[in-house]
Amino acid sequence: MNTMVNLISKDIPTRWYNIIPDLPEPLPPPMDPKEGPSRIQNLPNLMIGECLKQEFSQENWMDIPGGILDLFMKAGRPRPLFRATNLEKRLNTPAKLYYKSEFFSPTGSHKVNTALAQCWYAKQQGFERVTTETGAGQWGTALAYAAAIAGLKCTVYWVRSVYNWKKDRLYLMKLFGADVHASPSPVTEFGKTLYDKNPNHNGSLGIAISEGLEDSQNDPKATYALGSVLNHVLMHQTIIGLETQKQFEIFDDYPDVVISCLGGGSNFGGFAIPFLGDVLKKGKKIKFIAAQSQVAPNLQGKYEYDFADYAEITPMLKMCTLGHRTDMEPIKGDGLRYHGSSPILSLLRHKGYIDTVAYPKDEKHVFENTKMFIEAEGWLPAPESAYSVCCAIDEALKCKDSGEKKVIAFNISGHGFLDLPGYQAVLGLK
Amino acid sequence: MNTMVNLISKDIPTRWYNIIPDLPEPLPPPMDPKEGPSRIQNLPNLMIGECLKQEFSQENWMDIPGGILDLFMKAGRPRPLFRATNLEKRLNTPAKLYYKSEFFSPTGSHKVNTALAQCWYAKQQGFERVTTETGAGQWGTALAYAAAIAGLKCTVYWVRSVYNWKKDRLYLMKLFGADVHASPSPVTEFGKTLYDKNPNHNGSLGIAISEGLEDSQNDPKATYALGSVLNHVLMHQTIIGLETQKQFEIFDDYPDVVISCLGGGSNFGGFAIPFLGDVLKKGKKIKFIAAQSQVAPNLQGKYEYDFADYAEITPMLKMCTLGHRTDMEPIKGDGLRYHGSSPILSLLRHKGYIDTVAYPKDEKHVFENTKMFIEAEGWLPAPESAYSVCCAIDEALKCKDSGEKKVIAFNISGHGFLDLPGYQAVLGLK
Repeated sequence: MNTMVNLISKDIPTRWYNIIPDLPEPLPPPMDPKEGPSRIQNLPNLMIGECLKQEFSQENWMDIPGGILDLFMKAGRPRPLFRATNLEKRLNTPAKLYYKSEFFSPTGSHKVNTALAQCWYAKQQGFERVTTETGAGQWGTALAYAAAIAGLKCTVYWVRSVYNWKKDRLYLMKLFGADVHASPSPVTEFGKTLYDKNPNHNGSLGIAISEGLEDSQNDPKATYALGSVLNHVLMHQTIIGLETQKQFEIFDDYPDVVISCLGGGSNFGGFAIPFLGDVLKKGKKIKFIAAQSQVAPNLQGKYEYDFADYAEITPMLKMCTLGHRTDMEPIKGDGLRYHGSSPILSLLRHKGYIDTVAYPKDEKHVFENTKMFIEAEGWLPAPESAYSVCCAIDEALKCKDSGEKKVIAFNISGHGFLDLPGYQAVLGLK
Repeated sequence: MNTMVNLISKDIPTRWYNIIPDLPEPLPPPMDPKEGPSRIQNLPNLMIGECLKQEFSQENWMDIPGGILDLFMKAGRPRPLFRATNLEKRLNTPAKLYYKSEFFSPTGSHKVNTALAQCWYAKQQGFERVTTETGAGQWGTALAYAAAIAGLKCTVYWVRSVYNWKKDRLYLMKLFGADVHASPSPVTEFGKTLYDKNPNHNGSLGIAISEGLEDSQNDPKATYALGSVLNHVLMHQTIIGLETQKQFEIFDDYPDVVISCLGGGSNFGGFAIPFLGDVLKKGKKIKFIAAQSQVAPNLQGKYEYDFADYAEITPMLKMCTLGHRTDMEPIKGDGLRYHGSSPILSLLRHKGYIDTVAYPKDEKHVFENTKMFIEAEGWLPAPESAYSVCCAIDEALKCKDSGEKKVIAFNISGHGFLDLPGYQAVLGLK
C-alpha cells in the first residue's frame, strides 16, 4: 500500500479556482464606514493592480502565469500527500487519515504561495519594493523570501512584542535581505508618534499595518502585500487543495471530512475551497471543520460588516467576527489569533457549510494529540498546524467509537522547527 | 525550462548500490590493534546482524526491503532535484548548477536514510531498543525519529558540551520519545566513573560512544547504531545519488562536477558513490570535490590504519586520517569535525578519484557564499551543507573566468532552521 503520493512537475495545477461565482449567494462586497474618508476608493493606492482585479473577479478559473508556476516549482511544489498509516494503527481507528505537506515550504509555512504570486505581479507592475506587517512572523518571513526570489526589496513592520523574542525568525528574514523594523518604529510618521512617547511600545498588528501602508504610499516604487483574509489570497492558496484533489485520484480515494486550522482563513481556504467547490457544484457530501482556538473562535462570532484591522484603515468586510478591537490572549498558535474570518469562508459558514471546533487556550489537548502524530508519522507541525492535527485525531477517535470508515483529510500548513520552545512550554519537555 | 524534477513514489530506486566490488583495488578490511582484546570478534555483539553482513558484502546491488521503502516514502522520498537558475543568473556563470534537496528530511538531515534502514533491521532481528551517541545532534535526532517510526525505543548519549546549549534539538528528540542523557552520564558504569568526579564534564564523542556501546551490550533487547563512516551506512545513503541519477536523465543532463561536504563521509558517499560507479564502470569523467573545514581536513591526512573512536573501542580502519586523538576546534558546521574519512572514500581519495578543498575555520567565506544562495534560491542550508553550497559557487565562478559550461551537481544534506544562531554569529546579523 502506498503511504505517499507525489506529483511530477508537469502535473502541477495550472489554474487557480475562484469559488466566488459558485457561492450559494452573491458575496457581499467591501463597504465604507458611515464616517471618514472612503477606504474603497483608496484600494488602488494600496493593492497590486492584478490582485485588486482578482479580488472582484467572477471568472471561475484563472490561468496561473508561467512565471508564477516556475516560482512555485522553485519553492518545491507540488508537495506530497501522505497517508498516516502509522497514526491510524496507533489510534486503532477504522478511519483513513491523509495529510498534505505544506511544511516542505522554504520558510516553513503555506504563506509562500500567495507571497510568490503577489511579488511576481508587483514586479510585473514595475514596483521595486514590497512592504508589509507581520505578527507571529510567518507572513513576514514568507514575503521576505518571495521578494528575494522575485528580485524585489522588502520591508517588514513587525509587532515589537514578538520581534523582541523570535530572534531566529528575524535572522531568517535578514538572510533573505529584508529590512525589518520593530513596530511602532521611528521610520514612519505614524509609528514615530507612538515610538517617541515610548520606544518600548509593544505594538499591535493594527499599528504595524498602518506603518506598512504609510511606507508604501509614500514611495511610488513600493506596494503593499497582505497575507490572508482577502479573496485573491485564498484563490492563490487553492493550489494546495487542487494538488490534493489530483493526489486523491491517484490514491483512488476521496475525503468525507476536510479539516484545517483557521485564523484569517488563507490556509483553511486554500486547502478546503476546491473541495467546497465539489460540494457546491457536484453534490459531493463533505464535512468541513475549521480548527480554532478559544481565544479567537471567529467563525463562532457574528456575521456582520467589520474592519479587517484595529486602526480602521481597511474597508469593512462582511465577516464572521469577534469585533476588530477584541483583546485576544497570546497562544503558541499565534497565527490563529485574528478577530475575523475571510468573507468567502464566513459566508459559507453562515450558510452552514463549515463546522468549527475551538480548543482551550492552555493548548494541552492540541499539543498532546500532536505529540502522538509526531511519534507515529515523524513530522513536526507548526503550532497553528497542530490544531489541524488535533482535530483530525479527535475525528478519527470518534470513528473508532462509531465504527465508521471515514476518509479524513487534513492540511499541515507549516513546520515547527522554529517553534520548539512552544512545544517545550506546553508539554513540559525537559 | 524546468527548474525542478520530482519523481513519483513508484520511481524510487529499489536497490542500493554497493561500490566495494567495483573499487580499483580490494578494500582493506578492518584490523585489530597489536594489543588488547579483539575488536573484530566483538563486532557481532555491537552491530545489527544484517548490517554486519552488508558491511562485508561483495554483492553489487542489494534489494531494499519493501518495509524500508515504505519508511523512505513516509520520510518524503523521493526528494526533488533543483536547477539553481536564479543563482546562475546572479553569478553570471555559464555553468549549470543542480542541487539535491535532502533538507526535506523530517529531522533536517540525510541521516534519516540509514537510521530508518538500521531501525527496520533491528526490529526484524527482535530488538526492542537502539542506543547511540551523538555530537552535533543530527544523528541522535535522526535515530530518535527512525526508532519512533519503526516502533523501537531509543537511548541517546549526547556530548554534554553540546547537549547544554542545543535545547531545541533536545526537545525534538524528546518529542520523538527518546531517552537522552548528557554524556558522561551516571547511567553507565564507564560514564559514572567520569560523572562522579565531575558532573559538569564536557564529554567527547569517544566517551559517548563508549556509553552507547556499554548500554546496548548490557541489555539483550538493545542494539547499537552508527551514523557514518561504515560501508553499510554509505550504501544505505546511495539512495540519494541513485535518485539524482534518475532525475538527471529526466533533465537530460549529466554532471561534470559532483560536490558535497564531508565529515565521516555518509553524505558525500551517499550522493557521490553512484556517480563514482559511473566513472569506475562506464568510463565517465567527473571531478569529485569534498568540501571540508581546515579544522578537520581528513582527506588531506595520512592513508593508514586508525581507530574510528577516541576510546579505541572500534577495530582499526584504513582511512585518510588526522589521527584519532587530534584536537579539533569547534565550528558551526560541527558535523564535519571528525578525524577520519570512511574507508571507501579514503581508498578512492588515495587513488586520486576525489579532490578536497578545506575552508578556513572562521567560516566567513562559507556563510557569505551561502547567503548568496539563500537570497537567490530561498532554501536555508544546514551549516555543514553550507560547505557544499560554498564550493559549488566557487566552482561556478571559476567557470565564469574560464567560460566553461560545466554542469555542477551538489547535495544540500540538511536544513538550517535549528542553526540560525550560527548564521547570526558568523555573518553578524542584527
